[in-house]
Amino acid sequence: MEINDGTLAQLGEEWVIARAAKIFGTGGQWVGIGDDTAVTKIEKASAVTTVDLLVEGIHFRRETSSAYDVGWKAIAVNLSDIAAMGASPLWAVLGLALPKDTPGSWVEELFRGMKEISEKFGLSIVGGDTVGSPGKIFISLTVIGEAEKPVLRTGGLPGWQILVTGYAGASAAGLWLLENSEKIENSENLENIEDFARVIEKHRRPVPQIEAGKVIGRGEACLLDNSDGLFRSCQLLAEGSGLTARIDSKEIPIDEPTRRVAELAGVDPLDWALWGGEDYHLVAAVPNSRLAEISSSLEGLGVLCRVVGVLQAGDPKVLIDEKRLEAHPFRHF
Amino acid sequence: MEINDGTLAQLGEEWVIARAAKIFGTGGQWVGIGDDTAVTKIEKASAVTTVDLLVEGIHFRRETSSAYDVGWKAIAVNLSDIAAMGASPLWAVLGLALPKDTPGSWVEELFRGMKEISEKFGLSIVGGDTVGSPGKIFISLTVIGEAEKPVLRTGGLPGWQILVTGYAGASAAGLWLLENSEKIENSENLENIEDFARVIEKHRRPVPQIEAGKVIGRGEACLLDNSDGLFRSCQLLAEGSGLTARIDSKEIPIDEPTRRVAELAGVDPLDWALWGGEDYHLVAAVPNSRLAEISSSLEGLGVLCRVVGVLQAGDPKVLIDEKRLEAHPFRHF
Repeated sequence: MEINDGTLAQLGEEWVIARAAKIFGTGGQWVGIGDDTAVTKIEKASAVTTVDLLVEGIHFRRETSSAYDVGWKAIAVNLSDIAAMGASPLWAVLGLALPKDTPGSWVEELFRGMKEISEKFGLSIVGGDTVGSPGKIFISLTVIGEAEKPVLRTGGLPGWQILVTGYAGASAAGLWLLENSEKIENSENLENIEDFARVIEKHRRPVPQIEAGKVIGRGEACLLDNSDGLFRSCQLLAEGSGLTARIDSKEIPIDEPTRRVAELAGVDPLDWALWGGEDYHLVAAVPNSRLAEISSSLEGLGVLCRVVGVLQAGDPKVLIDEKRLEAHPFRHF
Repeated sequence: MEINDGTLAQLGEEWVIARAAKIFGTGGQWVGIGDDTAVTKIEKASAVTTVDLLVEGIHFRRETSSAYDVGWKAIAVNLSDIAAMGASPLWAVLGLALPKDTPGSWVEELFRGMKEISEKFGLSIVGGDTVGSPGKIFISLTVIGEAEKPVLRTGGLPGWQILVTGYAGASAAGLWLLENSEKIENSENLENIEDFARVIEKHRRPVPQIEAGKVIGRGEACLLDNSDGLFRSCQLLAEGSGLTARIDSKEIPIDEPTRRVAELAGVDPLDWALWGGEDYHLVAAVPNSRLAEISSSLEGLGVLCRVVGVLQAGDPKVLIDEKRLEAHPFRHF
């Protein structure tokens, strides 16, 4: 069935599988959808595997994100974990639990969003499982990649420089706008419309930094992604190396659009940078001797490289401008 | 926190991750829970990947299955797909969406069930993602394995023998008992209590046939598992080879306990064998010349090997006792 203007109750599971096979088709390179498992190959020494769940009502809302954006982001967050190992993505499998009143067009757009970003990063979606859901939409994505020597978040030494590869807080600014759209609509804010579009785009369609991860992974480094906010990344770096991460807040890169939205929202943009999360760039600690090479390679990729602090001897903790901060509580349950 | 007599709202996400890390610990062989991704290795030429979703209320009910059994079965169904490629399991990642009123003890037992079967089959659970669920429990499991030459379900030739490696219909019999427990409770049925326990065990704790899959995978074969009932397996074999699968119903192995429960239920046990599903043994088509070797190797493993039919020239269809049967409808949505 080619038409997709019915619900899944009308179109059936076969339609979902047929659309997935058509949109994700790997062109015969690997065995994809249609056997008991997918069959693929790894050439490098190590496999890296990551899984993320996205739940409707918690991680996305159909009112504020298109299916296309949800598909993009589901892949992006996993690729960001692959990037954080200095690895290359290879293949993915998708688990989908869908209520029977889900429109076929929603599923089709989800697949198209997944396909676009997968293609950009050389990822093949090779299999999956589709089931009914008694409630909300659940998306489970597992991505497997490879690296000769994956970069862990542990093992930094005193004096290693802490760097970030992107502007922090932009995703939080985008989310604030999506949740406060009435505040954009009065005319005095319309001059900022391009800023608004930019941070919303960063929230909806984050771009995983695969190539930047490989650059940082070429030599000694601790590496992770900035998915839970810069404070949490620095805390994990500190714990992973048993050292204190000393951060200079005025070095944290926050772009102008984020600052303008923060002003509109009446919040300190540093709060969004430290706690907002979902920025999906990379945070690394590297020896001083590597800084020039990394910085010039990242510049060549068009990727920001900003030193925001240093690892130093001391308890595993984070000092922001010499003050010890504790994590904001965030609870999944 | 060691105690698990609270709900997840009380225990928190950290508790879930700490319990997973403790129960699934890989003893340092691989990088497991705690970095951006798991880090593992593949030695053989091909990777095989499978994913399955289990949704509370659809695939299991907390009233009729213990958390331990759910954990066991979640792993078993994936390992059965690995077995159906003639492959060896290596590692798994787990996605869990849990309502905040889920008891910690339920999660602990789920992990213990997963751990027991994983250990039996050399599978390491190396990572995962835990999120809240606004409704039911969702479990997503991805398993990766390896094989020099994975066995597909395609490419059979006329004259190849169709064999099964286990008794069909037992899982359906077990499910019927679980859903009709009041019928077991009158005294005249108590003499059958061991039979009942046996088929219920087959439904709750299926045993994937990894070693049998490797035996069949040593040479030419088409192979799949019997998860959706014997009719569906034969239909997929027929379609995969573009041949007719001719099945002799009296050769289909149905054990005595299943026959006795079928009598109690007033159904033809052949219906359960053909359509019941969830038996998780293997269905293969192999050249005549391989039968003696396969049969003797499976016997050595204590695994049943029964020829139930043959592939022959003709449209891709299934003939049961020379009659063409169509699939029963089964809809996920």
